[in-house]
Amino acid sequence: MTASLNPDMFDAACPTTAMPFQIGDKWTVMVVLCLEDGPRRFNELRVPLRRVTSKVLAETLRSMERDGLINRFAYDENPPRVEYELTPLGRTLLDLVDAARSWCSENMDDLVAARAAFTARDPA
Amino acid sequence: MTASLNPDMFDAACPTTAMPFQIGDKWTVMVVLCLEDGPRRFNELRVPLRRVTSKVLAETLRSMERDGLINRFAYDENPPRVEYELTPLGRTLLDLVDAARSWCSENMDDLVAARAAFTARDPA
Repeated sequence: MTASLNPDMFDAACPTTAMPFQIGDKWTVMVVLCLEDGPRRFNELRVPLRRVTSKVLAETLRSMERDGLINRFAYDENPPRVEYELTPLGRTLLDLVDAARSWCSENMDDLVAARAAFTARDPA
Repeated sequence: MTASLNPDMFDAACPTTAMPFQIGDKWTVMVVLCLEDGPRRFNELRVPLRRVTSKVLAETLRSMERDGLINRFAYDENPPRVEYELTPLGRTLLDLVDAARSWCSENMDDLVAARAAFTARDPA
């Protein structure tokens, strides 16, 4: 007999519960990868992140800045130049992201096979 | 001079790009944690996952089944009983989830401080 699940296992008020959502956010992960090699401008990020709207990318960057994962630098130039870079805290996410990508590479064949088998028996 | 980002860094057609979204999905992570100790019924999962609607939880479970992360067992009883359990592939996600939770625990103070500082200087 397995013990009951704790109703407060994912208490919304607990920051350790709240945080994985943020770092699990798909665009956050991609921004972290884009910034691995150094600072980038907004329009540079838009090149690989073309499937995200400008609005959502701006919101993602603001949320990451709020959490101390990236720094935003606005240069007083004409036209204005804004760059984003990972903070030391943000850089610590690279290990996690690498672990997730390694998991995907290692298990990709199994995942693709599972999807094919599922679709074959349940095409709906 | 940092090299340009590859426009196809996140090619939608590449399964290694697609997968992290799925495992990064916030409900998927919570379902994995809920199933760590053994099989659970839908209504058991609803106890800690009360902030997710039944519809979204059902979709999450179906998506996880499709990807071979969980098995679904329907018992021919009255009332019908349905249980979900992690597959061996799904269990390999526990290490990743633990890594994410460890990261959060280790960096929680920095994250909370960053949020407070951001709100103080930019209350909008």
